[in-house]
Amino acid sequence: MAETLNGLKRTIMCGDVTETSIDKKITVMGWVQRKRNLGGLIFVDLRDKEGILQIVFGEEINKGAFEKADTLRSEYCIAVTGMVVKRESPNETMKTGMVELKGEELKILSESETPPIYIKDDLDASENIRLKYRYLDLRRLDMQKIFKVRHKTAKAIRDYLDENLFLEVETPILNKSTPEGARDYLVPSRNYPGMFYALPQSPQLFKQLLMVSGFDKYFQIAKCFRDEDLRANRQPEFTQVDMEMSFVEEDDVIALSEGLIKKIFKDILDYDVQVPIKRMTYKEAMEKYGSDKPDLRFGMEIQDISNIAARTEFGVFKGALENGGSVRAIRVPGAASMGRKDIDRLGEFVKTYKAKGLAWITIKDEGIKSPIAKFMSEDVMNEIITKMEAEKGDAIFIVADKNKTVFAALGALRLELARKLEILKDNKEFNFVWITEFPLLAYDEEEQRYTAEHHPFTMPMDEDIQYLESDPGRVRAKAYDIVLNGEELGGGSIRIHDTKLQERMFKVLGFTQEKAWERFGFLMEAFKFGPPPHGGLAFGFDRMIMFLCNTDNIKDVIAFPKNQNAYCPMSEAPNVVDDKQLEELSIKTVKKDKESSEE
Amino acid sequence: MAETLNGLKRTIMCGDVTETSIDKKITVMGWVQRKRNLGGLIFVDLRDKEGILQIVFGEEINKGAFEKADTLRSEYCIAVTGMVVKRESPNETMKTGMVELKGEELKILSESETPPIYIKDDLDASENIRLKYRYLDLRRLDMQKIFKVRHKTAKAIRDYLDENLFLEVETPILNKSTPEGARDYLVPSRNYPGMFYALPQSPQLFKQLLMVSGFDKYFQIAKCFRDEDLRANRQPEFTQVDMEMSFVEEDDVIALSEGLIKKIFKDILDYDVQVPIKRMTYKEAMEKYGSDKPDLRFGMEIQDISNIAARTEFGVFKGALENGGSVRAIRVPGAASMGRKDIDRLGEFVKTYKAKGLAWITIKDEGIKSPIAKFMSEDVMNEIITKMEAEKGDAIFIVADKNKTVFAALGALRLELARKLEILKDNKEFNFVWITEFPLLAYDEEEQRYTAEHHPFTMPMDEDIQYLESDPGRVRAKAYDIVLNGEELGGGSIRIHDTKLQERMFKVLGFTQEKAWERFGFLMEAFKFGPPPHGGLAFGFDRMIMFLCNTDNIKDVIAFPKNQNAYCPMSEAPNVVDDKQLEELSIKTVKKDKESSEE
Repeated sequence: MAETLNGLKRTIMCGDVTETSIDKKITVMGWVQRKRNLGGLIFVDLRDKEGILQIVFGEEINKGAFEKADTLRSEYCIAVTGMVVKRESPNETMKTGMVELKGEELKILSESETPPIYIKDDLDASENIRLKYRYLDLRRLDMQKIFKVRHKTAKAIRDYLDENLFLEVETPILNKSTPEGARDYLVPSRNYPGMFYALPQSPQLFKQLLMVSGFDKYFQIAKCFRDEDLRANRQPEFTQVDMEMSFVEEDDVIALSEGLIKKIFKDILDYDVQVPIKRMTYKEAMEKYGSDKPDLRFGMEIQDISNIAARTEFGVFKGALENGGSVRAIRVPGAASMGRKDIDRLGEFVKTYKAKGLAWITIKDEGIKSPIAKFMSEDVMNEIITKMEAEKGDAIFIVADKNKTVFAALGALRLELARKLEILKDNKEFNFVWITEFPLLAYDEEEQRYTAEHHPFTMPMDEDIQYLESDPGRVRAKAYDIVLNGEELGGGSIRIHDTKLQERMFKVLGFTQEKAWERFGFLMEAFKFGPPPHGGLAFGFDRMIMFLCNTDNIKDVIAFPKNQNAYCPMSEAPNVVDDKQLEELSIKTVKKDKESSEE
Repeated sequence: MAETLNGLKRTIMCGDVTETSIDKKITVMGWVQRKRNLGGLIFVDLRDKEGILQIVFGEEINKGAFEKADTLRSEYCIAVTGMVVKRESPNETMKTGMVELKGEELKILSESETPPIYIKDDLDASENIRLKYRYLDLRRLDMQKIFKVRHKTAKAIRDYLDENLFLEVETPILNKSTPEGARDYLVPSRNYPGMFYALPQSPQLFKQLLMVSGFDKYFQIAKCFRDEDLRANRQPEFTQVDMEMSFVEEDDVIALSEGLIKKIFKDILDYDVQVPIKRMTYKEAMEKYGSDKPDLRFGMEIQDISNIAARTEFGVFKGALENGGSVRAIRVPGAASMGRKDIDRLGEFVKTYKAKGLAWITIKDEGIKSPIAKFMSEDVMNEIITKMEAEKGDAIFIVADKNKTVFAALGALRLELARKLEILKDNKEFNFVWITEFPLLAYDEEEQRYTAEHHPFTMPMDEDIQYLESDPGRVRAKAYDIVLNGEELGGGSIRIHDTKLQERMFKVLGFTQEKAWERFGFLMEAFKFGPPPHGGLAFGFDRMIMFLCNTDNIKDVIAFPKNQNAYCPMSEAPNVVDDKQLEELSIKTVKKDKESSEE
């Protein structure tokens, strides 16, 4: 029997009722978390987004309310009016635990069937059930907290950028498909049969056009779309904090971004980020950490031992060096005690990064052990150990290969060992670093051409422009990524704002002039009319919220996420649509066997 | 010859340089609005988004800069450093008109071809050219101002709703197609061949689910999409301020909305909106103004003269009354002087609203004129004039028909005459009114069934629920629209939060239970688990900005709008995509003649 509010107003949120409310008459509204009958009384835990309040119904408090309370079940939505009193047996673990509400009036606003998942924070229901009943999963106070953080973070970003004279400008969702990069989501056009819009992978071109438009400082908390196979922590639609500024250089964008990061971590977590944030070149990051997003919360840096390795008789080392590669190693404190099987598993692990094998040295009480000891003199072995500053109890892991492979393998091994040895357990640090001087281009072995490391609009470093055609791999970019605890939080660059340089860039990327103009002509056309120097940056907003909420599941920070197949178990999107809809769009669906589905 | 910034920093915006800057050395950056050579000096008007500053280059100020300045042309992007001095011949119409900048250093940051449109505010280029070169059109200071207002309005909305404990939550763009309402934009799914996502027409279902989730107060400045034929002031994608609250009734939503409106008009225009805003029932609005979005800035209300008309011998009047219709009229001050031809044109005008004709009475110095005078006694004629309170110089226009036709015709005529007679010329008023007690359902003659007037989730008024099946047309809704100067600025309702009532509603709308569950099952499923009473409202954000910027063209308030065919002349979206893309999506395009385009 659902009742209507009929003028009844909530006076306070459940979670806000504390001792200051004692002897006051209040009205709260929310959901029944649990109900217990105890000593002739009925105790109800009432939940709203601010917390949980204990309500007591009794025959002597109000007989009608008491009898109605007896019909309550979990997740009924109710309104209760009564006096707040001091609780006889306080619960100090709860904010509202010192008080309780005497239930004098009770309205059942709506009833509930038995919910298919429990509304509690240590939920272990399967992800699919949680997504199907997302509206119940979201009732958990842990989830409510995440979306408060998400809201507050967006607010902090907007306040900061507004103060810094940025304008938020909405760019179109219905765009042109420019298939450089990830796969586009397409939208058939009804007015132009055979043509399609594409959902934006980022507002990149539009933000640059806004700079050409004289907007000076732009930002947007923007929805972006990529039709990719969903790895963990990818969603088909995601949100980025997109910024662009005119008349700036790298340091300006970096300083502005640091102010923003500082404000967010202060406002949300009361955590002081030290600025300026340290910077590291791409080259140093690769050489020391084997990654362009190094986790600097721990050491175990990669060291080059090629010079020493050259003096061994080990064929693998010699081969790598002769082929222009190197021999590098990491020292892992306390890893000497690892069992042989575990070490063998590490050997398998580095093979997934294309390394041919993993050499190792352990320094135990009983002496040095190593399968490669036989290939070198004791002196050379000691030289390696000295170079690596290894002590008793440590292990040294060595990879010899092409540099690219050595970095990939040792970089991954470093993280894997940190995880295995729980080096970061209880670490609450936020370790930021800017990675700078990225290569402008990366050679794509498959396509046998250079592709843009960031995107084709990134400005080369002034001193490297001369090598654009003669030695493209050598050219560094005015690009910068902000890395937090080994994850990329954002990235950006100074852009090319010169049609001629942009055309050279497209040429190096293997685009014919025709193809380049077909795809990006409107940007190059715009650059004919006095484009300002400009640059910007985009933060991954979902990733940022994951950090702030200490979750490693992107689905936790998106209100209605899709599953790994880009499917929504709740709304059942995507679905089959009416034939009439497809007809109007001049498309038909094709069965797997390439037959039209319409015949 | 483009130069780089190379560490040069802007110190102030052009538009901000006033007498307080005199004798200071500044650096400004922007675009050459115009250049004049005069008396051996070169004068450059430099423009950035804040305004225009006069710069003077001379051989005696700096010879190098002077010579370089001579090469400048319109829309070159430059940086200038120098001292600010008092201008000899001030221009009092400009904010910066009392000063000028002595150009001591000049950098040409980029050159410009002759722009295809002038960058000036009284631009009369064709819309298509303006859209193709949107980035140039946006450089106009008038356009820059609009996007500042748009940004500030969004900021004001977010600040207000944040203070009122609303959380901004992003809802998905990739949704399920629910073809009640306008036409959906579809997105083919790659993972599920033959299936489609749909872009949201509004976040309606998701905001209701957020209430079921316990979010309590939600808002979003949300992108919405409708694949409709574009009338003036429609765009395929548009923005709405979407809000929803739990545990509220109509008055709560209205009060919250009024506070928001008041803040926006105060912050942006320093205009005081009087609250509470007046309210009018749908019935009264239709009877007095022939419209559910009445423009109350002027009178000319519709009056019912059926009683008097019944006493004439005029067949049209008698016929209308016998068929259950009515005879109604408006009095138009000063319209007696309209020529016969103009009045005949009004007769044609009302026919477009299905009225069979227009009767009229003019009260001139020389007496009363009317083609229907012959059908009535002088007494009856005088009674009409008295009832209409018509005076010398006025005209009375009368329509007799079914009520619906009478309201539509006279409502439109009232607006048409106000426009023709320029009644609202120079009127700067913002006249708000809430329209309440809308009919829940409207009978669709074509589909021969009732359709939802707002949407199928709107709560009927308590006292009318009993008629839901027996007399659906009689049922009024807990729905409210906010109307400003005759335009709908927003609308909302209290929602049904009861599965059983929602099912009754779908039944009345002619949905089988199966069809209703197929489309909206996830909402009805959610309603099984203690949904709270809830309601909300959505404002048209683009429309709001149009009011605040005093423009009647929606394209002015959207950074990158589409044209009337949903086409973007700048980016050339939509376009043809690669066959490979379509193959991956398991669709093919169909030629007009229904042949596949692939063979």
